[in-house]
Amino acid sequence: SVKPFLSPMAVSNIRYGPGVTKEVGMDLKNMGAKNVCLMTDKNLAQLPPVQVAMDSLVKNGIPFTVYDNVRVEPTDASFMEAIEFARKGAFDAYVAVGGGSTMDTCKAANLYTSSPHSDFLDYVSAPIGKGKPVSVPLKPLIAVPTTTGTGSETTGAAIFDYERLKVKTGIASRAIKPTLGLIDPLHTLHMPARVVANSGFDVLCHALESYTALPYHLRSPCPSNPITRPAYQGSNPISDIWAVHALRIVAKYLKRAVRNPDDLEARSHMHLASAFAGIGFGNAGVHLCHGMSYPISGLVKTYKAKDYNVDHPLVPHGLSVVLTSPAVFTFTAQMFPERHLETAEILGADTRSARIQDAGPVLADTLRKFLFDLDVDDGLAAVGYSKADIPALVKGTLPQERVTKLSPRPQSEEDLAALFEASMKLY
Amino acid sequence: SVKPFLSPMAVSNIRYGPGVTKEVGMDLKNMGAKNVCLMTDKNLAQLPPVQVAMDSLVKNGIPFTVYDNVRVEPTDASFMEAIEFARKGAFDAYVAVGGGSTMDTCKAANLYTSSPHSDFLDYVSAPIGKGKPVSVPLKPLIAVPTTTGTGSETTGAAIFDYERLKVKTGIASRAIKPTLGLIDPLHTLHMPARVVANSGFDVLCHALESYTALPYHLRSPCPSNPITRPAYQGSNPISDIWAVHALRIVAKYLKRAVRNPDDLEARSHMHLASAFAGIGFGNAGVHLCHGMSYPISGLVKTYKAKDYNVDHPLVPHGLSVVLTSPAVFTFTAQMFPERHLETAEILGADTRSARIQDAGPVLADTLRKFLFDLDVDDGLAAVGYSKADIPALVKGTLPQERVTKLSPRPQSEEDLAALFEASMKLY
Repeated sequence: SVKPFLSPMAVSNIRYGPGVTKEVGMDLKNMGAKNVCLMTDKNLAQLPPVQVAMDSLVKNGIPFTVYDNVRVEPTDASFMEAIEFARKGAFDAYVAVGGGSTMDTCKAANLYTSSPHSDFLDYVSAPIGKGKPVSVPLKPLIAVPTTTGTGSETTGAAIFDYERLKVKTGIASRAIKPTLGLIDPLHTLHMPARVVANSGFDVLCHALESYTALPYHLRSPCPSNPITRPAYQGSNPISDIWAVHALRIVAKYLKRAVRNPDDLEARSHMHLASAFAGIGFGNAGVHLCHGMSYPISGLVKTYKAKDYNVDHPLVPHGLSVVLTSPAVFTFTAQMFPERHLETAEILGADTRSARIQDAGPVLADTLRKFLFDLDVDDGLAAVGYSKADIPALVKGTLPQERVTKLSPRPQSEEDLAALFEASMKLY
Repeated sequence: SVKPFLSPMAVSNIRYGPGVTKEVGMDLKNMGAKNVCLMTDKNLAQLPPVQVAMDSLVKNGIPFTVYDNVRVEPTDASFMEAIEFARKGAFDAYVAVGGGSTMDTCKAANLYTSSPHSDFLDYVSAPIGKGKPVSVPLKPLIAVPTTTGTGSETTGAAIFDYERLKVKTGIASRAIKPTLGLIDPLHTLHMPARVVANSGFDVLCHALESYTALPYHLRSPCPSNPITRPAYQGSNPISDIWAVHALRIVAKYLKRAVRNPDDLEARSHMHLASAFAGIGFGNAGVHLCHGMSYPISGLVKTYKAKDYNVDHPLVPHGLSVVLTSPAVFTFTAQMFPERHLETAEILGADTRSARIQDAGPVLADTLRKFLFDLDVDDGLAAVGYSKADIPALVKGTLPQERVTKLSPRPQSEEDLAALFEASMKLY
C-alpha cells in the first residue's frame, strides 16, 4: 500500500501527489460547481481512478453525471456525440478521467457547449478547419490523466480522426487548456505494459520534436496582433528546459516503468515527465513525427495493438509517432546537429567521438536501439503498411501544416515519401 | 540600434522579446480595456520604457491615466495612496512599468480596488495581517519589468514596509499574479550598474533559497482543502528546474551585465533569469536570506545606496538579501549538503575534492568571492548596522514566518542573532 501524500506539489495548473484525485470534489466545491459532467471511457469506468473521483464528488455533495462513451483515439463523430451529451446536460463544470482521448473529448465538449452557435469546423486547425480564435469563456475542466504520455492535462490541444478525410487533426487554443490537472501517480499502476511503452514514446517524441523545432524567433510570418499568434510558436528557451528535462526522465525511467507494473517510482516519474513535456511542446509545438503520425493512425487497416481493449483496429498514437522517429531525425539533423547529438547523449549514446555531421545517424541508431529494447514493432510494415500506401500517407500528412511547418528543415512531398519508406523497417 | 523581434516568445503569462512593450496597447485593446491606469515611479516616468508603453496606448486608442507616485521600496502608506488613486479612477485594467516596487504597488491597487470592503490587513500575510484567501475577481494587470531581479511579473507577491512595525511584509496570493508580463530586454539598457548588481543578487537568492527550501512533501501542517494551501509550498521538482536554470544564467551573465550597460545579450539573459527564478520561487518560496532581509531594509538608518535616485535612506532589496547569504547557507547546508555543493559548483567553485560536510563553507566562500568581485559593501556594518542592532533585526525577522518556516533547518532566536552577527563583515 502506498502512503498518501502529506502535501501535494501545486504549480500553475497542475497538482501532483499520490492520492490527489481524492481532492477533485473539494476543488469543484471551491469552484461552486453544482452540475458536473465526469467523462471517461468504458474500460476505466470500472477501474479505481474513476471510482476514487466519484467517491470524492459524492463525499463533497457535488451532483454529477457520468459520460463513459469516450472513444479511444476519438473521431469527429465521437466528439460530436460527447458534445451533444454535454449540451443536453447544461453542465457547469467538467472532470475528465482518462488518457489523451478522454481529456481531448472533454475539452471539445466544453468548447462547443460554451460556443453553441459555432460549426464544428470553426475551431479546427486550418486548412482542414477554419482555425478561428476562441473568445468565449469556457466552464472549468479538471483533467485527471491515467496514462503517462499525452500531457493533455497541460495543453490546449484536442486531437481527433476526421473521418471524411481519414486523417487526424485537432483544435489548438490556449482557451481549452484544463483549469487544473490532477496528476495522481497511483493511477499509473493500472496501465498495461504496452500502454506505458506507447504513451512513453509520445513523451519521447514531444521532447525530441519540441527541442529540435524551428526556433521561435525564426518562425514567420509573425502575426502583428498577439491574439492571432499560433499556440505552437517554435522552440524557445522555456520549452527547451522542459524538453531536456522530460527526455532525461524518459531515458532513466521508461524501461523500468514498462517492465514492472508495481514500480511506482518509475511510473510516477513518467507521469510527471508526460506533464513536463506537455508544458514544453504545448507552447513550442511538435513537427514531423507527429505530422506523419496522423495518417499512420488514421489509415489503419487491421492492426490491433496489444494491451488495448478496443473494438476497432488501432495504431496507438505513441506508436504511430515513434515509428518514423529514426528517419525523421536523420532528415532534420543537418539543421541543428548539436541539439540532435545532445539528445542522443541523453538517451545513452556515447557521443564523445561523434562527428557533428553524423548527428542524425547517431540519434537514429540510439532511437532504434531504445525501441528494440522495448519490443517495438519493426516499422510501418509491422503495423500493416506497404510501399503502395505511401502516396496516401503523404497525402494525409500534407494538411498537418500546424505542426509540419515547425520542422527545422522544410520538406517536399518527395521528402515525406522517402521518410515513410525509410520507416517501413526499423531494425 | 537593436533589431526588433520577428516574433516574441510567449509562454503562459510571460511574453519576451526586444520591443515587446510596443504590443501593450494591442493587448489591452484585445482585453476590451477602456480606462487604464499606468503605474510607474517618478524617475521612470521620464524614460523610454514608459514612453514606449504610452505611445502604444495612444496608438491603439486606449484612454489612460498615469500614476507616477510609486515609492521605491513601498510602504503601507504608499500602497494606500496608490489604492486610493485607483479607487477614484474606477479603472478596468492596469499597466505597471517599473521594478518590483511598481509591480507590487499595482498588484495591491488592483486587489483592494476589486475588494473595496476589505481592511488593508485582511490580505496581508499572517501573523502581521489576517492572510485571508482572495476570492474576488481582479482586473487585468500587465506588468512590464524594467529591472532584472524581482520576477514580480510572474509571482503573486506584493511586498511593502509596514511602517508601524518597521518591518517588511507582504501579500501572497496566486490571485494577484499579473495577467501578462511583457519582458522587454531593451528596458534593461537604462539600468545603472548597482541596480543591475542588486537586482541580480535578488535573482541569485531567489534561486539559492528556493532550491534549498524545505521540500514540499515535508511541509506541515497540510491544509485539508486545496484552497487554503500557501502560495509558498517548499522546493519541488518543478521549482528546482527553474532555480538551477536561473542560477546558471546568473553565474554566466551577471558580472557582464553589471559592468557593461550596452551588453544587451548579458542583460537580456538576466531579464529572463529574473522571470525564471520568479516562476520557481513563486511556488516554492524563499527562506532565511529573504526573511532576514526585511528588517535589514526596514530598519535602515542613513545608508543611501549608490545609483538609486531616491529622497530617503535605502538598502535596496537585493543588497539586503544577499548580505546574509554566506552565513545563511553555512547554517542550512547540513540539511541538504548535496544541493549546497551543487550550487557552489554552478557558481564556479571546484567541488571535485570537497567533502560533503564542508558544503556550507564551500558555498559561503564561493558567494563571498562572487560578491567581492561585484564590489558589494562589506557586510551589514557597511550599510550602517552594529552589534547593538541585532536584537531589533531578530525581532523584525520573527514575524516573517511566511518564508522563515521554509528554511530547511529550524532556527531559534539565538540562531538568527548569530546569523546577523556573522553577516556584519563579509571579507
